[in-house]
Amino acid sequence: MDNRPEHPSTREAPSRTSSAPPDRTIPSSADLLDGYRSVRQRSRYLTRGLVPEDQVVQSMEDVSPTKWHLAHTTWFFETFVLVPHKAEYSLHDERYPYLFNSYYVQAGERHCRAQRGYLSRPTVEEVWAYRKAVDDAMEAFLMEERPTEARALVELGLHHEQQHQELLLTDLKHVFSVNPLRPAYLELADRSDEPARPAMTIEPRWVSFPEGVYEVGWSGGGFAYDNEAPRHRRFLEPFALAHRLVTNGDYLAFMDDDGYRRPELWMSEGWARREEEGWTEPFYWERRDGSWWMFTLQGMRPVDLDEPVCHVNWFEADAFARWAGARLPREEEWEIAAAGAPIEGNFVESGRFHPVPALPAGDEGSGRPTLDQLYGDVWEWTASPYTPYPGFRPAPGAVGEYNGKFMVNQFVLRGGSCATAQSHLRPTYRNFFHPDASWQFSGIRLAKDL
Amino acid sequence: MDNRPEHPSTREAPSRTSSAPPDRTIPSSADLLDGYRSVRQRSRYLTRGLVPEDQVVQSMEDVSPTKWHLAHTTWFFETFVLVPHKAEYSLHDERYPYLFNSYYVQAGERHCRAQRGYLSRPTVEEVWAYRKAVDDAMEAFLMEERPTEARALVELGLHHEQQHQELLLTDLKHVFSVNPLRPAYLELADRSDEPARPAMTIEPRWVSFPEGVYEVGWSGGGFAYDNEAPRHRRFLEPFALAHRLVTNGDYLAFMDDDGYRRPELWMSEGWARREEEGWTEPFYWERRDGSWWMFTLQGMRPVDLDEPVCHVNWFEADAFARWAGARLPREEEWEIAAAGAPIEGNFVESGRFHPVPALPAGDEGSGRPTLDQLYGDVWEWTASPYTPYPGFRPAPGAVGEYNGKFMVNQFVLRGGSCATAQSHLRPTYRNFFHPDASWQFSGIRLAKDL
Amino acid sequence: MDNRPEHPSTREAPSRTSSAPPDRTIPSSADLLDGYRSVRQRSRYLTRGLVPEDQVVQSMEDVSPTKWHLAHTTWFFETFVLVPHKAEYSLHDERYPYLFNSYYVQAGERHCRAQRGYLSRPTVEEVWAYRKAVDDAMEAFLMEERPTEARALVELGLHHEQQHQELLLTDLKHVFSVNPLRPAYLELADRSDEPARPAMTIEPRWVSFPEGVYEVGWSGGGFAYDNEAPRHRRFLEPFALAHRLVTNGDYLAFMDDDGYRRPELWMSEGWARREEEGWTEPFYWERRDGSWWMFTLQGMRPVDLDEPVCHVNWFEADAFARWAGARLPREEEWEIAAAGAPIEGNFVESGRFHPVPALPAGDEGSGRPTLDQLYGDVWEWTASPYTPYPGFRPAPGAVGEYNGKFMVNQFVLRGGSCATAQSHLRPTYRNFFHPDASWQFSGIRLAKDL
Amino acid sequence: MDNRPEHPSTREAPSRTSSAPPDRTIPSSADLLDGYRSVRQRSRYLTRGLVPEDQVVQSMEDVSPTKWHLAHTTWFFETFVLVPHKAEYSLHDERYPYLFNSYYVQAGERHCRAQRGYLSRPTVEEVWAYRKAVDDAMEAFLMEERPTEARALVELGLHHEQQHQELLLTDLKHVFSVNPLRPAYLELADRSDEPARPAMTIEPRWVSFPEGVYEVGWSGGGFAYDNEAPRHRRFLEPFALAHRLVTNGDYLAFMDDDGYRRPELWMSEGWARREEEGWTEPFYWERRDGSWWMFTLQGMRPVDLDEPVCHVNWFEADAFARWAGARLPREEEWEIAAAGAPIEGNFVESGRFHPVPALPAGDEGSGRPTLDQLYGDVWEWTASPYTPYPGFRPAPGAVGEYNGKFMVNQFVLRGGSCATAQSHLRPTYRNFFHPDASWQFSGIRLAKDL
Repeated sequence: MDNRPEHPSTREAPSRTSSAPPDRTIPSSADLLDGYRSVRQRSRYLTRGLVPEDQVVQSMEDVSPTKWHLAHTTWFFETFVLVPHKAEYSLHDERYPYLFNSYYVQAGERHCRAQRGYLSRPTVEEVWAYRKAVDDAMEAFLMEERPTEARALVELGLHHEQQHQELLLTDLKHVFSVNPLRPAYLELADRSDEPARPAMTIEPRWVSFPEGVYEVGWSGGGFAYDNEAPRHRRFLEPFALAHRLVTNGDYLAFMDDDGYRRPELWMSEGWARREEEGWTEPFYWERRDGSWWMFTLQGMRPVDLDEPVCHVNWFEADAFARWAGARLPREEEWEIAAAGAPIEGNFVESGRFHPVPALPAGDEGSGRPTLDQLYGDVWEWTASPYTPYPGFRPAPGAVGEYNGKFMVNQFVLRGGSCATAQSHLRPTYRNFFHPDASWQFSGIRLAKDL
Repeated sequence: MDNRPEHPSTREAPSRTSSAPPDRTIPSSADLLDGYRSVRQRSRYLTRGLVPEDQVVQSMEDVSPTKWHLAHTTWFFETFVLVPHKAEYSLHDERYPYLFNSYYVQAGERHCRAQRGYLSRPTVEEVWAYRKAVDDAMEAFLMEERPTEARALVELGLHHEQQHQELLLTDLKHVFSVNPLRPAYLELADRSDEPARPAMTIEPRWVSFPEGVYEVGWSGGGFAYDNEAPRHRRFLEPFALAHRLVTNGDYLAFMDDDGYRRPELWMSEGWARREEEGWTEPFYWERRDGSWWMFTLQGMRPVDLDEPVCHVNWFEADAFARWAGARLPREEEWEIAAAGAPIEGNFVESGRFHPVPALPAGDEGSGRPTLDQLYGDVWEWTASPYTPYPGFRPAPGAVGEYNGKFMVNQFVLRGGSCATAQSHLRPTYRNFFHPDASWQFSGIRLAKDL
Repeated sequence: MDNRPEHPSTREAPSRTSSAPPDRTIPSSADLLDGYRSVRQRSRYLTRGLVPEDQVVQSMEDVSPTKWHLAHTTWFFETFVLVPHKAEYSLHDERYPYLFNSYYVQAGERHCRAQRGYLSRPTVEEVWAYRKAVDDAMEAFLMEERPTEARALVELGLHHEQQHQELLLTDLKHVFSVNPLRPAYLELADRSDEPARPAMTIEPRWVSFPEGVYEVGWSGGGFAYDNEAPRHRRFLEPFALAHRLVTNGDYLAFMDDDGYRRPELWMSEGWARREEEGWTEPFYWERRDGSWWMFTLQGMRPVDLDEPVCHVNWFEADAFARWAGARLPREEEWEIAAAGAPIEGNFVESGRFHPVPALPAGDEGSGRPTLDQLYGDVWEWTASPYTPYPGFRPAPGAVGEYNGKFMVNQFVLRGGSCATAQSHLRPTYRNFFHPDASWQFSGIRLAKDL
Repeated sequence: MDNRPEHPSTREAPSRTSSAPPDRTIPSSADLLDGYRSVRQRSRYLTRGLVPEDQVVQSMEDVSPTKWHLAHTTWFFETFVLVPHKAEYSLHDERYPYLFNSYYVQAGERHCRAQRGYLSRPTVEEVWAYRKAVDDAMEAFLMEERPTEARALVELGLHHEQQHQELLLTDLKHVFSVNPLRPAYLELADRSDEPARPAMTIEPRWVSFPEGVYEVGWSGGGFAYDNEAPRHRRFLEPFALAHRLVTNGDYLAFMDDDGYRRPELWMSEGWARREEEGWTEPFYWERRDGSWWMFTLQGMRPVDLDEPVCHVNWFEADAFARWAGARLPREEEWEIAAAGAPIEGNFVESGRFHPVPALPAGDEGSGRPTLDQLYGDVWEWTASPYTPYPGFRPAPGAVGEYNGKFMVNQFVLRGGSCATAQSHLRPTYRNFFHPDASWQFSGIRLAKDL
């Protein structure tokens, strides 16, 4: 028992936690080089069909222009790897750090977020020249084995770029959506080789979990963000999760039952926002000639009732769950349910950029049902505000601003989406957005107390 | 036609929880009558020194005019007790429900909150006539023993009025504070009979608690709000709480160490607000001739270094704790620490309307230190976002809007303040405000992981 | 070192104009004392039926609380007469100048206009004590004959208080109107002694004026504001004015002809405001059970088709005129038409506080028609932006801020209203408001080119 | 004398005015074809150095993207000439009218102005394809002599495109200015062949005009906008204009004399805006290392004291004039002074895109001084609110929205700028902007009463 008399504000390091993420295995320079080439190449791949005009626009403050994402991820490697760790490196352009720092206060002054769409220069071509210069330096840098600290920052940079690849897609979706022409990011590839999917509505089932003290959080080994640590214990009362995601059909039933007109289903703040902004359906849905359509990265499409509902914000997800007599899962419930499950699903690699319906489970009748659609398709809103784990310590230095300073007024989402890279995900991964955010691929899985 | 598949959302009652607050003992009508007279009388007492002009002003949207509080608490009894439960009751004024419903959507349309200060009528005198009429009806009503449901609503109404008595004081403080004349609510009573308090800074000490599965939440018996139930289990890693509140002196050290100029100490949203609104010291502090003064309900006073710091918002409390190498307590940590402690302290009954310094502990050297200032003085910000407990169910009907619909983007505070009635408090009590709120008597107790 | 060339900007006084208002006759102290008592007494009279609560509220930024008007007009005499001109005068309360200066930058710092409704203190009673103290000092001051400059300031102060008496009424009307109880300022006096007015719609007729060089502006003699000088010449093309004001019936025809739904009738800015704020009828009109009602200082009343339309803003007046194939008068056209006409009409002295219908003209068939309703009833919007006259010079000192600094983005109104004192008006009087203002008694007279 | 008894709102055409612009000579189709090619070619020329990214950005609501200007001017010909007047013309893209209609309500629904910068598509290339298609159709159309009405609309379209060429430049200047890289629109051409300009400050002189009845407004003949008609008479008191524009040096003297810190020099609204937005120097000026620099279309340059001050808004111009003991000219004063003067000066054709200093007058000592810099360099703010001339009638149809609906809350500017085409100007030309606009090439000429 601790009975120390000294003042709380002595600012010594708390005794129990060490720097997060602790003790993990950092890949070798050679492995990082492979990863670097692969991740950087994907940014090129994802933007191959765009014209320069597409890459300039910022259609709301949350959105960044494509070329900004391409430059910012490059700035990250330049600032956190090359400048401190590469001998005699000089900046590609000394004006770029000001333009392409996002929010790292400790990394210097930066351009106003709301004005990223006001920059016609540097051009897309100049941004690619910037990427080329940094790629050359990074590849040279990774030709030798580097100290742990430098390698850890390279690894962080790769995960960082994967995150921005997802944002690049969701941001482009928003940019195209506000254009009355509704341009498609992707002209739908010929899908004749895909077997026709039968119209098939999957019955949802509850999967139960007993009460107990569980461990959650990063358990060591591979990469994790600091916000996933430290591993710690939680007591959970018994609960159940729905085995599949909520579908557009489920959500339409909520809409048809006046879900958007019944304040008793909503949080007070959500209702106020709903009234101010006139929410009456999920973001990107449009009523055309008596039918529901939705904007996708492939352009406008009729709403498919069997697909997971998508682009709902937390207030909508919460109201839907209340209407359904259920609730949203807590993040630890999701993590416990996901422990041991394979990381499989509909990710960015599928090239669909859109969620797909659940398939009939192979395990029907086999006893305990398993959870479907855990990874990919849509990020699953949880009931958990985004807070630090017991013993959380941000990573030291500017990269410590990556996660920790956002732990207020946001909610955790789990599981990744159709715009997330498969290699980016793990059971302990915590994504987070404000409860009014709907431009991400965000959906709903129901939970209940037992 | 609805041919939905059987879905988790069948809205059956969850199996485990019953209506909250469950199974509690409801006082008899006779006891409620005593309580009614006592609580209602206090509203008269608290407003005895005011002129009509004081009772009209709404100095910001969060603030309500005094006469609105006096009428709204009356409307509560009229709407939830007299109208449904008293035979042949007719409304005192059929236009008042529209004016004095605060946010109960299920109780009908209501006046815009932001315009409460635009109402010169009904006058203060008319509001007191309204109170008189409802008091007469309520007292007659309580002359007989009434059904449980009705008595439960009377009891709820009394706690409701106690809450509004506290708001009435904090709102008046704000109203007076924005007036360049800085009027005092209370001309400072002669304190010559109070022993002079020696300048005495109490060293803070840590009080430790071991890991374990703890029970938290309302355990039955007396009154509780629905948000305190059901009682449930939590696993806690070992932690410690500071034995006393953070003082003005402690907080000045933070200010002097550039606490308001170091973004790394702040949540990102807090820092943005700080920059927009120019926070540089606690709310109600003013710099005069090189010294710090503060506005109190007794008028302007020099800042007393030994008093608990007050009128800090959550962002400030969180930044201070980070600067101090500590953190804010979780609400369950506070509740566990408070379990079994007497509900003693500096409450509204003291007539001070201001927090007071901690006293030297009598138990020094006696072994385990105890926590001081747990109740009264200032509400203690916790690290816990305000969320439903596992199994939470709002009370049925419009009174179910009392708590549940606010469970987003707010933080829990514990322990009551110098403006709270002693009888209003209990260890499981959960107060909640947005993280930018600073017009309440809100302060800081530090915690840390062990 | 300044070695600027000799430039036009040498700031010598322009050669032609002298200080405005020039060469006018200033009443004697004895006459001013009579006027002082009379004007000050009217402020008491106009507020005799109010409770303190009514006098605190500021229902929008343009509105000031009654007690603020009462104090501000008092501050004007104290600041501009007593302080500079009365020996050994000391301020009634040294904190009041900060509170009750409206916009005179040269008279010192002042309280924020938008927060006048946040002040519960000084109380109404304290404001009357302030008035009493200043009245005593002013009456003593005027017992002796005073220098011209001092007497001119007293006279200005009386006209200033008359203006504020009108604002006090229009502001109270707004305060009461936003209250769902719709309280009446004036319980309608028994009008049984008034002869019943027959329903009688007066046909409008055009009164024509030939082209020519006319003189406009203050021609010397009695009081005028600086903005009415100097007298100067204007060439006017031939024009005509309607002999009476536009009525509610006329305006309803515009509404029934989709006047609020046809953008081609509106200025672009007016249309944008109309869409943002949903204008569909004059301010203070309400639809009740299929009929049009209006809020008046006597409470809610059915719209009378023969009364002049009132509480229209400039955008509405301009759109109505365009719909009618006409236009608004220019201010000089109005002044020429009014030259020589008696200052008669429905003023504040009538105690109606509401415009009345035109009466059948006695001169019908007698030859040239005359203009009716020139003075009183409603201020008449003109087509003239409020600009300085050729040779205009503001009065020296802080009182020079009275008029001149508002000469942008406002329009001139002429003729006074049912809330204006008869003695306050003259043919050259220029009132001015922003084109979106509708809380004044403002109406329409049509004009056209010939 | 008109003594008609009918109601003013009979909406017959006023008797005196005919459709504006009246009776003017419309060029032949052959001449219009020459003009068409010339004007359209200039749009190509002005955008020749831009990359696609430059043409997408909307840096504030007043600004439109370059490609929007290029498409909107094309839409104008398509909508007002080709669709109504060319047999069997079909729209190039039926979705474009929605996107490229600016504010013509009668021409159909349109895209939100504030979101023009959200459109990545159509691309710059697609916009040029649109221009090509319309050019082909227009050139074919103009191969034959067309009816007067159609030819008048072609002529209007050419002047319209010239206006947008100026806006295209001022908008690009703003777009580049908000970019921290401060890109230059124009890499400064080699100026070695220009004779070095000696530092030479020209003394300003007053040019006087006697009182009298003057005619102003369009006098027939060539093209004019409807707002320049009808010609009418004005009486003017004697006045004088400064012979040259106010220079940066003059303006610096105002700044050095605390011009931005003395509220008595400012209109009340201007002062409020100054305080809110922190105006302390002309738009585009920056303080660098103790010197004043300005952003130009050639990039950043030190402020040249002899150049005309530029990018001041009306509030600044008015305050400067008051400080200088002078005033701004009325628009009719400017027009009278300009009558008969040659339309010469520094226009867009010079390729400088920046104002130049006045030259020593050749007429010094020759008697009456003449006015310099009347045309070109900078638009000259006048003291005249933008109002309709007596007898003004907007052109019929949607093109009648070109000018008339903006006649409120704006001020007239005269004389054109360094970004205006010489052929676009004439003495009666009335430009107009809101008094807070500073992104145009707007400057100051002083006037005074005599």
